[in-house]
Parts: sequence; C-alpha cells; structure tokens
Amino acid sequence: MRPFCIAGILLSALSTALADEGMWLFNNPPVRQVKEKYGFDITPEWLEHLQKSSVRFGNGGSGSFASANGLILTNHHVGSGMIEKLSTPERDLLEEGFYAKTAGEELKCPDLELNVLISIEDVTERVNAAVDPQASPEDASKQRRITIAGIEKESDEKSGLRSDVVTLYQGGAYHLYRYHRYTDVRLVFAPDVKAAAFGGDPDNFEFPRFCLDYCFFRAYENDEPAKTPDFLKWNPAGAKEGELIFTSGHPGRTNRSVTLAQLENMRDDAFPYRLEQIFRGEATMRAWSDRDLENARRAKGSITGIQNGRKALAARLNGLLDPAFMARKAESEKAMHEAFSQKDEWKKAAAAFSKIRKTKDSSKELESRLRMFEGGDAFGTQLFGIARALLRAGDQRVMEDKMRLPEFQEKERVSLELDLFSDEPVYKNFEVVKMTNALTFLCVKLGATDPLVKKILAGKSPADRATELVMGTGLEDVALRKKLYEGGKDAVAQAQDPMIGLARLVDDEALRLRQEGEAAAEVIEQAHQSIAKARFALQGDSTYPDATFSLRISYGTVKGYEDEGVTIPAQTTFGGMQKRHDGQGKVAPFDFSSEWEARSSSLDSDAPLNFVSTNDITGGNSGSPVVNQRGELIGLVFDTNAPGLVSDFAYTDVKGRCVSVHPAGIIESLKKIYQADRVIAELSL
Amino acid sequence: MRPFCIAGILLSALSTALADEGMWLFNNPPVRQVKEKYGFDITPEWLEHLQKSSVRFGNGGSGSFASANGLILTNHHVGSGMIEKLSTPERDLLEEGFYAKTAGEELKCPDLELNVLISIEDVTERVNAAVDPQASPEDASKQRRITIAGIEKESDEKSGLRSDVVTLYQGGAYHLYRYHRYTDVRLVFAPDVKAAAFGGDPDNFEFPRFCLDYCFFRAYENDEPAKTPDFLKWNPAGAKEGELIFTSGHPGRTNRSVTLAQLENMRDDAFPYRLEQIFRGEATMRAWSDRDLENARRAKGSITGIQNGRKALAARLNGLLDPAFMARKAESEKAMHEAFSQKDEWKKAAAAFSKIRKTKDSSKELESRLRMFEGGDAFGTQLFGIARALLRAGDQRVMEDKMRLPEFQEKERVSLELDLFSDEPVYKNFEVVKMTNALTFLCVKLGATDPLVKKILAGKSPADRATELVMGTGLEDVALRKKLYEGGKDAVAQAQDPMIGLARLVDDEALRLRQEGEAAAEVIEQAHQSIAKARFALQGDSTYPDATFSLRISYGTVKGYEDEGVTIPAQTTFGGMQKRHDGQGKVAPFDFSSEWEARSSSLDSDAPLNFVSTNDITGGNSGSPVVNQRGELIGLVFDTNAPGLVSDFAYTDVKGRCVSVHPAGIIESLKKIYQADRVIAELSL
Repeated sequence: MRPFCIAGILLSALSTALADEGMWLFNNPPVRQVKEKYGFDITPEWLEHLQKSSVRFGNGGSGSFASANGLILTNHHVGSGMIEKLSTPERDLLEEGFYAKTAGEELKCPDLELNVLISIEDVTERVNAAVDPQASPEDASKQRRITIAGIEKESDEKSGLRSDVVTLYQGGAYHLYRYHRYTDVRLVFAPDVKAAAFGGDPDNFEFPRFCLDYCFFRAYENDEPAKTPDFLKWNPAGAKEGELIFTSGHPGRTNRSVTLAQLENMRDDAFPYRLEQIFRGEATMRAWSDRDLENARRAKGSITGIQNGRKALAARLNGLLDPAFMARKAESEKAMHEAFSQKDEWKKAAAAFSKIRKTKDSSKELESRLRMFEGGDAFGTQLFGIARALLRAGDQRVMEDKMRLPEFQEKERVSLELDLFSDEPVYKNFEVVKMTNALTFLCVKLGATDPLVKKILAGKSPADRATELVMGTGLEDVALRKKLYEGGKDAVAQAQDPMIGLARLVDDEALRLRQEGEAAAEVIEQAHQSIAKARFALQGDSTYPDATFSLRISYGTVKGYEDEGVTIPAQTTFGGMQKRHDGQGKVAPFDFSSEWEARSSSLDSDAPLNFVSTNDITGGNSGSPVVNQRGELIGLVFDTNAPGLVSDFAYTDVKGRCVSVHPAGIIESLKKIYQADRVIAELSL
Repeated sequence: MRPFCIAGILLSALSTALADEGMWLFNNPPVRQVKEKYGFDITPEWLEHLQKSSVRFGNGGSGSFASANGLILTNHHVGSGMIEKLSTPERDLLEEGFYAKTAGEELKCPDLELNVLISIEDVTERVNAAVDPQASPEDASKQRRITIAGIEKESDEKSGLRSDVVTLYQGGAYHLYRYHRYTDVRLVFAPDVKAAAFGGDPDNFEFPRFCLDYCFFRAYENDEPAKTPDFLKWNPAGAKEGELIFTSGHPGRTNRSVTLAQLENMRDDAFPYRLEQIFRGEATMRAWSDRDLENARRAKGSITGIQNGRKALAARLNGLLDPAFMARKAESEKAMHEAFSQKDEWKKAAAAFSKIRKTKDSSKELESRLRMFEGGDAFGTQLFGIARALLRAGDQRVMEDKMRLPEFQEKERVSLELDLFSDEPVYKNFEVVKMTNALTFLCVKLGATDPLVKKILAGKSPADRATELVMGTGLEDVALRKKLYEGGKDAVAQAQDPMIGLARLVDDEALRLRQEGEAAAEVIEQAHQSIAKARFALQGDSTYPDATFSLRISYGTVKGYEDEGVTIPAQTTFGGMQKRHDGQGKVAPFDFSSEWEARSSSLDSDAPLNFVSTNDITGGNSGSPVVNQRGELIGLVFDTNAPGLVSDFAYTDVKGRCVSVHPAGIIESLKKIYQADRVIAELSL
C-alpha cells in the first residue's frame, strides 16, 4: 500500500514519526524511522525471530519464549488469575509463590490459551471486493462480516492455525493473522505476590519502582514441553541509558484517532464527571472501611479498583489539560481537514469533524442522564443491577430473540444466568453506603427538583431512601432470583420487591436514553469511518494503526526523566527496594515474605531491579519482552508511569515512560531468594 | 415583650414548639412547652441555680461547677488546647493524661478565661432609642454600635462584671449579659487522649460511641480555689430512657432563619461544591500520604481536618436533600410571607424573600469565581497565601489606613505579621500535590478555555504548572518574606518570584469579585433585617433566637433511634467499648493506653459510658452539663451524631441526637483506671 500524498505540509502534519512513537505492525515495521534516528537496520530475519519468540496470552497480555523447550516469561500480574485458580485452600500460590522443582511438578492451567504469530496476509482487497459499493452502511457491514468469517474459516481449515482477520486503520486495511495455538500451558515458577507487587496501590503507576512482576509458564504439546526453536537469549547486563531497545507485544486498544471535539469532551465533561464520581466513592468507601475491620474486608476490592481507576484517569485528565498537547492535536486535525477539503470524494471526511463536534455538543444532557439511569450511576449497588436484570429478563424473554436487547438474546443466556445466580455475597450495610452515595450524586448532578429524581427519592433523603430500598429488598437471596427469573414477566410483575419497583420506575426513561445514545454513537462511528477512509487513502500504511490486541513492535531508549524538579534515574536496585521497605515501616504493601526477610541479606544491593524507557506501549503490553539490537532480552514490560497514561490518546516521552523488570533482578531473586536453580539453568544467559 | 399576633394559622406555622426543639434564653425559658409536654415546672430558683452552675469557656465551649471549691467539668476536647499548652517535651499530657494528686500540683493555664452568667437585662429600648429612624442603614448601624459600646462600658464600670450586649433575633432584641470572670484556671485532671477520643475520626459524629471525653479544671481567685456555692450535684444513676432532661450551655451559631432560597442554594450549589472539593482533596491527599511515611506525617493534620469537614457537610447535605424537611421550610416561609403581606409596614419584609432569592440566583457565577480567585480554591497552598499577603501588603500599606482592606489595617498588623512570618514548615512536595489538585479543580469548574484560567496555566498542564510555581518560589524562606514585607510595594514589584507573579496575575479580578460579593451579601443582610423586624413584631420572644454563644437551656429525653433498620440503644457501656477495641484489632484509633490495658479488667463492663438524647444543641454546647428535674448532673454533652448535624438550620429528632458522657462512666474510669481519688472525693455524689 503506497501513500497518496497531496502536499508537503500534510505529510509532516500527519506524520507520526516524531520521537519514539508508534506501535508498529510486524509487516510494516518502522525500518526507515529507526534507521534515520538510530542507524540500526531492522532486517527481516531479526524481525521474524522476534515475532516467533513473542507470545500472546488469551486473557489479555504478552510474553516471550525463554528456552527451546517452551519456557515462557510473562508478568506475575498477567499470570495471577491462573496462579489463583491453581491455588487450593491449603496452598495459596499468590502468597507463597510457586516453584516446580521437577518437570513433573509443573501445574497445568485449567483454561489458558497462548498464541504465537506465524504469518500475516493482507486480505484488504478480498474483503473490500466482497462489499457492494452501493449497499447501505448496514448491508455493507453485514457483507463484510460474512466475508471475514469465510476467510478465517478457510484459513483455519487449510493451515490448521488459528486465523483471525484484524481490522486496522478503522477499516483502512484487513490483515489475516495466523497463530500457532498452545492450550496445554503449565505454571513453572512464580515469586510471592509481596515481591511481585511490592508497593501495592501506592506505588502503582509510579516510578521509582521495585516490583519483581514476573513468572514463568511452559507450553506443552502432546504432554511434552513444546519445541520452540525461536526463543530469546537473555542479557543480564541489560541496556545502557540511551541504548536503542524494542518491545514486542500486544497493545490492547488506543484511541489516538479520536477528534479534537472528542478529546475536549473527555477533558471538559466525561473525565471530570468520572473523576468526581471516583473521588466521592473513594472517600465514602474508605471512611466506611475505617469504621470497622469487617467493613474493611468487605470494601477492600472495591477500594482497590476505584483507586486504580482514579490514578489512571487523573493522569489522563492532566494530559488533556496540557494546552500544548491539545494545540498539537488541533494543528494536525486542521491539516487533515485542509487535505480532505481538496478532493471532492473526501468532502464527507472533511465534514466529519464538525459532525462529530455537533453530535458531542448536543449530547451533553443526554450523556449526563444516560450515565445516571442506564449506566446505573444513580444507584451504585449490586442489588439494583440484579433487580434491573430480573425486570428486563421478564420483559425481554417474551420477545422474539432478535428483537431483544443483545444481553438478553439466547447466545448470552449462559453468561446472564451465571451473573444473575452468582452466589457472590451481598453486604447490605455496604450496599446502603454505596446507594446513599449514588443517590446523593444523582441529586447533585441532575438537581433535587428534577421530576424523575423526585420520584426516585419518593419524599425521602438519599440516606433514608437507600436504607428503605436495600433493607426492604429480598434480592440477596439467590433462590428468590431464580424463582422470579423462571416465573418470568408475571412473577416479576407480582413481586412486591422495592428494588424491582425502583428498576421499573426508571426503565422507560433508561431505555429511551439508551436508544438515543446508540443513535448518537452510530453517527460518530460513521463519521470516523469517513475520516479513516480518506486518511488511509492519503497516508496508506506510512504510519501505525491504533492498537487492536495484535502483535506490534515499538522502539525507544532507556531514559530517566525530571519530575517536580527532581531527576528520576532510569534504573532502580535491590538496595533501593530495601530502603523503601525500611522507610515505610516494613508494613503492607511494603512488606516482604518471611522467606525474603530470611534471605535478603545475600542480595546484591546494586543489582538492577526495574527500569524505564521511552517505548510506546499500552495495556496488553504487560509481559512484553524488551530486546536490544542483538535481539537479546534485556527487560520485561509491566507498567506505564502516570504521565505515560495519556498513551491512550497520544504518545508522550517528556515524562511518560514504559516500566520494565530488569533481567538481572529476575536472576538475582531466582538465585538468592527462591533458589530456583532449575529455571536459571534453562535460561540462555 | 409581647407577641403581636394576626391569625391562628400564623402562630402554628411560625411556632417552634414542636418536639423538643429550642435553644432557649434563660430570661425566657420554655416554661409553657415543658409544662405542657412533660408536666414539669421550671421555677426561677431551679433556673438560677443551673445558670450560676454553668460556665462559658472563652475558647468556645461550655462547662459546669462540680464542687463548691471551683472544680469544673468540661470536655477533654474543650480543654485539649490548654492540655497541649501545658505539656512539655518531657511530658505529653495529651498522651499521658494528667492528675494533680495535691492542690499544689494543679497546673495554671497560660491564657484561659471563664465566664459565669450573673444577670441579664433587656436593653432593647435603650439601643433602639439611640438610633435615628430616618438614618441611612450605614449611619443607623454606626449609631447602634456606639450606643452598645457605651452600655457595655457603663455596666462594666458600675458592676465590675464583664458586660456584653448580645444581639438577638437578628436585631429584634438587645440583652445585656453580665458575667463573673475567672482568669486563673488550673488543670486538675485529664484522662489520656486514647480514652477521651476513642475511635478517632472513624467514630466522630457516630453512635454507638465510647468516649471518655471529660476533664476537670478549677477556678481560682486570689490564688485560692474560687468559692462557688452554685454547683451541680452528680447523680451517677443517670437518667432513664424517656426521662425529661435539660442541657445548659453556649451554642455558638445557628442559621435557622435563612430563607428557603438560601437553603436551596446550599443544597444545589454551595454544599455540593464544597463537598466536591473535599472529596477530591481527601482522596488526593490520602493517596499521597499512603506513598510514604514522611508524607503521612506531613499530611496528617490536613487529612483529619478535611475528614471532619466531609462528615459534617455530607450529613447536612443529606438533611437538605430530605424533601419533607424542605417542604416544612417552604410552608413556614409561605405563612410568614402571607402574614407580612397583611400590613403596609411589613411590605418590605414580605418582599425580602424574593429579593434574597433573586440575589442568590444572580450570584451563582459570581460565587463560583469568587471561591476560586478570592477564596483561593484555585491555588490551595500555603505558598500562594503568603505570596498574596505580601503582594497586598505592599499595595495596601501605602494607602490611608481606613481605605485599606480590613486585614491590612493597623489594628490587624500584629496578627498579619504573626501569620506572615510564622515558621510553620512549608513542605514543597506536599504543596505541589495540593496545587496540582487545586489547579485541576479550577479547570474542571471554570473550564480549561476560560481566559483567566488559560493565563494561570501559562500553557502547561496543572501538574507541570504547579511544579514550576512551587519549586520556583523562594517564599518558604521567612527571611525573604520579611525582606519583601519591609521593602514594601517596590521590593515586591521587583521580586521575580513566580508565586508572587501568579498572585499579581489574578489580583485585579479577585478584588473585583470580592467587592461584588460584598455588595450582594449586604443586600441579603438588609433583607434579613427587614424580615427579622417584622417577625419579631409578630412573634416577639414567643420563640427562641438563633444561637449567639450566649447561655441557653434546651430540654429533651434520653432516647435511642432506628438506623438502617437497626435499633440503636440510647446507652453504651465499658463492655461495648472493650468489644469495639477487640473487634477493631486493638489498633489506633481503637487502641488503649498501657495504663488502661493493665487495669481494664477491673472495670464494670455494664457501667454506662455514653448516651444520646433529643436535646437541641450545636457547636459551643461541648462540655454542657445535662441535668435532671432535680437539677442533678446526669451527663456531659460532647457531640452530635451525623443526622443531628442539620441542627445548624433546623432541629430534628428523627435520628438526630445529642451525645453525652454518662457520669457513671466518668466515675468508673476515675476510680478504676486513673485512681484519681482526690477528684472523686470532691464530687457530691
């Protein structure tokens, strides 16, 4: 695919070849950019080896082969779901860690699929040819879906490989990815979680950092360790400051193609709203948690989740509030608009920017009501969710399948029932706190005199109304839920449950808002498709597409940064970790396991632990190998620092950094703390 | 003063004789109400004894005489400022507690004044007669001030008593209060703070409660214990559930006469704004505090303060969001408006309600900008406050004294310089966190594209701008502040300090907003004076006036309540305290002193500790005695529960409660834990 260029100014405005930006496709790597900036040649052989050494985790993460016998390195936090499932009441593998001293002790994961990318084929023409250019958007979309499914099925049958067609550049290109699939995956080694997630939430998204966020699995085939001739040699010396390095992994999703109007909406409305909700939720839940140890136990998960969200969102909002960042976006959009305006066939694309702005501007009230009533922010409880699901299940299941809301169609029945009949505990005192908070938030945002708000409060204060509803409902009882679900619309209608009453009270308005919201989203999606088409016609694949959980390569260098006038060095050490442990009074989340305490004196305090680099990554890159120019593993990606969280909508290398575990830290801990000689012996150092 | 009544409906609508409401004047006690509801006669003798047994603490609290030798009971939290001042580096009296085993060991407070009310004289006519009815509001106000000062001076000289004219009913009446004054006050006994403030912030404003929030002082005259023939006998049996009881104390301030429009403004704008600021401040500061033990130490005071504010404000907002509460206010205001409309001379009062509404409605944008720029919410740091004070001091001190802003006039010079040259530490890393948070809040509330906001950010993100300003300023240096202050306007103008630059950037707008805000406040104040005049003409003193830190009596009963469907008993015990201690893992703020741990097994676990009652109290009542019909002390007020916090603008007894320490709890702890026999021996039990 060749770029079709109109003007010099356009190229530079649209170009993304600044700094170390880009999550590049393996069949369109940043050869020119890396050559120009660093003088290094990315050869096809170098690239193929890296590709075949890279592993995709089906649960949303990345990894790499560390030996010819299927040994795989990834993050502890990528593996932790499996580690938890492999634990027993007698043996908590998260707390204790795990080490298979023999091959026989390696623990088979119940449901983990790994993929290794074997080949990529451009099927854009085949997909586009199958779509009638005169078809309506709906018909075109359907024809495209059918064609893609056919290509995948044919490839799957012919190659025996997992075959996925990936939509790139918002529909500018379609590539067929063929993966080798491993379904027998076993746990080989995991450090204890205190070391893996040292610093917990306080250190999350921060740097300096001291996490041994790694673990090892092994791919098996026919009950034998898989033969994996493509694997990464390790270089425990790591990379020097300024040295060119690469990551190879599976970034999940980015939104770099959203328009200025959408960014402004996030900055002025969506993010402030969500943060306001998070701040009040966090303060309220922590206050309740502080009242009682049992409260603390009940609220712990919710608080951890909300804190992670607060950090990520606050960092992103700070990025959007950077006028320089927004000015760059405005400039590049202006250039695009000018370019599109020069050809009649792109007039629709040129008009799409203002169409999106108009739609966002006119949807503000809709969005604020939608979040409350259909999004459920006004109610904030498990019990309301259950009540609404029962009400809607009753209403929807008497309808023809295809006329129902998607979540009530037959294909979703199993997961709906799994949710609805889950025996996850419902803590009524916590529900009252959450619902009081949510109802107060509703009053604050929509006004206490809004007619629907008044009906919801039913003449009571938020606290009294929440108490009445939560204490009055019986929906914490799974048997009652089953009865009402099975009894259908009539049973639900006859139930005198106050929470179902509330769900019924708001349901017409909630569904109306949902429909309106979906219509607005469709307008925006179509506008984006126009832009993407014109943009791709102009640029082709001279740049990288938004992330799609497909394999990407990024480049960068090891590099510290300045923060609050302080220079943050690029690398941390075991000595620094010990200092942080001591400095924080040795208490959670800065504590060590007893095994660690007993052996930590033998650690080399100068051995490197974590480091930062300028590579362009995002969620899904967790577990990605970091390699040097010789293709040697010199790091293991596990996080982004807070300033780097804006990578969702733009790359930044001022303070934004990719955070990785250093291989020397892995080896030092394997040797001195965990004495996992069998793992070390297998590595190619 | 006789009420002038127009119609029956008016009396009932304006009457406040519902439930146990009222902070009544001692020269106009609720004789009729108590007789009608409880059949008890408040006699002049009974009342005088209670009055003369009641003590006002100059630092804002209440107390009572507990012996004929000047022994005084009050709250630990009323005395804690003194207890802290009496501590030495070697002897922390808050942590250790204090017990003077002999008279000689009693510790003299450096600066505590106590007052005991001796007489009240109505001087309304004298004050009103001195004011020219044709005078402008400003002149009238001046004439009144001069007259009041004259009355006070004359009484002081004649009686030798401290003489204060108290403005009641928003100017409906003026009473001259004469106090016996004690300036030699000594600390006799204080429990350790772990027992006094058991449960800390998590239990603040909550019930059940387990606080030994008491301590003892002694009034001295001529270096001898004061002779105080009026003192309260104690009844360790306390009061039974439902028994009529009274409090006698000094409620500081209530806002029960604000109009519906003002309440709606609080509900819809002022409180949600302040809570939003509190929620984000609390979450942000706690997150920073969790990062580091030193951070935690630096942020502790700020976090405790903000948590106290959150609890109080959230409870008040919940009260305002109770539609029934607002409906009652609307109804009573409607009745007042109708009554006022019937007489020509009250037309101005009748019109005042809509005048206030119009002013509040049209001031919304003004208020939101005023809070940010003049209130300083946009900057949120000590350093900005210092920069602004230096800038304004330079500008103002070249002006004629009376033309200056009040805080820069000569009479305020000492306290201004005390503030400005305080060696209170400035933690720059904490300042960056607070300023980043404040600048983000500014962007969220006023919009990132507001012209002044853009100038403030100066092309940077909130985090980068905050870092630049805080790290760039030198104002943490007290010597530099002194130099700039002494150098005056020119020195400040020449200083290249970025924080002073910021203060200068916003100062014109801030001062303009302040002027506009003061004009709006004046309109509202004058409208209130019209209402108060008409209301007093109608009602006279048939009801109680808003609180004014003068002595008041309230009545009520010991009474539990329902919360979240749970019955909360009226009384707690030592057994309950032990259970809470154990249940919370025995850690702060639920921990005991080692002395307590060693001796607690001897405590009677059934002995009562705290109890709730329906008495109408507010801030300033802390330390008030609770007495039974025989005038015996059966409690010591120390808190309001959360639902009672709406008492600022309305009495409620649904869940709102006054929280007191039980005398049996005081005696039990004095005996068994502190072995303070000398104190017990002096009490009249």
